[in-house]
Amino acid sequence: MAAAKMSVAELERFLRVEFPQTFGGDDVTIESADGETCLLRQRYSERMLRPGGTISGPTLMGLADCAMYVVLLSAIGPVGLAVTTNLNINFLRKGAPGQDVLAAAKLLKLGKRLAVGEVNLLSGTAPDPIAHVTATYSIPNA
Amino acid sequence: MAAAKMSVAELERFLRVEFPQTFGGDDVTIESADGETCLLRQRYSERMLRPGGTISGPTLMGLADCAMYVVLLSAIGPVGLAVTTNLNINFLRKGAPGQDVLAAAKLLKLGKRLAVGEVNLLSGTAPDPIAHVTATYSIPNA
Amino acid sequence: MAAAKMSVAELERFLRVEFPQTFGGDDVTIESADGETCLLRQRYSERMLRPGGTISGPTLMGLADCAMYVVLLSAIGPVGLAVTTNLNINFLRKGAPGQDVLAAAKLLKLGKRLAVGEVNLLSGTAPDPIAHVTATYSIPNA
Amino acid sequence: MAAAKMSVAELERFLRVEFPQTFGGDDVTIESADGETCLLRQRYSERMLRPGGTISGPTLMGLADCAMYVVLLSAIGPVGLAVTTNLNINFLRKGAPGQDVLAAAKLLKLGKRLAVGEVNLLSGTAPDPIAHVTATYSIPNA
Repeated sequence: MAAAKMSVAELERFLRVEFPQTFGGDDVTIESADGETCLLRQRYSERMLRPGGTISGPTLMGLADCAMYVVLLSAIGPVGLAVTTNLNINFLRKGAPGQDVLAAAKLLKLGKRLAVGEVNLLSGTAPDPIAHVTATYSIPNA
Repeated sequence: MAAAKMSVAELERFLRVEFPQTFGGDDVTIESADGETCLLRQRYSERMLRPGGTISGPTLMGLADCAMYVVLLSAIGPVGLAVTTNLNINFLRKGAPGQDVLAAAKLLKLGKRLAVGEVNLLSGTAPDPIAHVTATYSIPNA
Repeated sequence: MAAAKMSVAELERFLRVEFPQTFGGDDVTIESADGETCLLRQRYSERMLRPGGTISGPTLMGLADCAMYVVLLSAIGPVGLAVTTNLNINFLRKGAPGQDVLAAAKLLKLGKRLAVGEVNLLSGTAPDPIAHVTATYSIPNA
Repeated sequence: MAAAKMSVAELERFLRVEFPQTFGGDDVTIESADGETCLLRQRYSERMLRPGGTISGPTLMGLADCAMYVVLLSAIGPVGLAVTTNLNINFLRKGAPGQDVLAAAKLLKLGKRLAVGEVNLLSGTAPDPIAHVTATYSIPNA
């Protein structure tokens, strides 16, 4: 198992500066990150919803993208310029209104130039994912 | 060429009710929609940006998802319950800060149960897309 | 846990008729299938390779597609007309020449009209996947 | 418009050596390639079919992957080690039995490290694509 290059506290400090929109408030918190996986929680808010009371697609895509970035930083340390090159999302189920959304990310590959991971998006404590994401990040040259 | 089932004015009225978050203000406008293609414009705002001054992923994914919905409504008429089942996005280039973002959508297939389309996301008047999306919508039973 | 609607022997008999190209010989075997997951093995052959000695993309995509079909049949019983609507593959690592390729599939969602699953493709006994697939099948009306 | 770095004759000579499985016979021919787009034709054969008489997924995925490689070579010249990192395919319609399959590829981005393109797969002279592919290639360091 890879050792994490950044602690959760270091990740939160770094991201509050890098991603003030997402991590500036206390909506999104990092529950864990160990260099191979991470778990993010986004606190329920009505702004997440689209008509019909389901969690909006951009909310899920944004949180999944963040989770991929967090697990990547946790694996390689503070690199500000990694960018998403591809993201594929399958929407699977409605989330329950009133519930937090969790993003459980796992690195599938950590190469020199590309990192690939998958993210299961969960609604509260329900076991079945409401969406599944794979994403690729391009890592700048050291 | 298929005839549009809804005019641009009808689409905007429908979407202001269905998607108040996106279409409630005047940030996103429908430039055209003809039953096979559509063009959406999202007015530049600093809220679109992520650090480094690029347009954020969730902004692009959200706008592309809207454009797919608009072209689908324009092809089949007002159906509130169509939902995205899959979205794949390739991020290609940085958008220019200060420029509007445009989404040019085209239906690739309109079946009874599934519609598939592609969306080129453009920055201002630059010809090369900043991102490319394919998306699938599930159409509820008539 | 869902009960399998078809045993491995029933699946192999059905697929030898339905997919003679893939299951007609003894190249591909079903190691297990339980209504939620399945494991397929494709025996190593030089025909799998592309130049450089890596397993070819079409081999991996074809095996993953089969694995999704097998786990779906195992969940819903013999339905000949289910068709793939979307397949996304991330190529992660070179497989080892001379090794069998395994496909470990898992259903992420089994709806009335759509089934979504993921497949990890493995080279011999190495633990890290050489490719990762998500795929969607459209299920015909009962 | 970018100038092609290799002529069609040079591409076919290169690919017969690099991809003898695909280009060794005369099943697949390059109709055109100009540094930004290319058109490939795969001659109809019964081996392409899956049960029900549709063109098999691996046939379409394999041909699309080849088309992406051809348009990339045509843009950057003979580079043997470019590899596919991601491929997303949407299956749209049945192809007509007895018809050749054509793959019309277009580069969406040609970067130093990554190239992204899209491919429309066509059945004979029918205008609507039977499948649509986006794919990413990783380009080795010069």
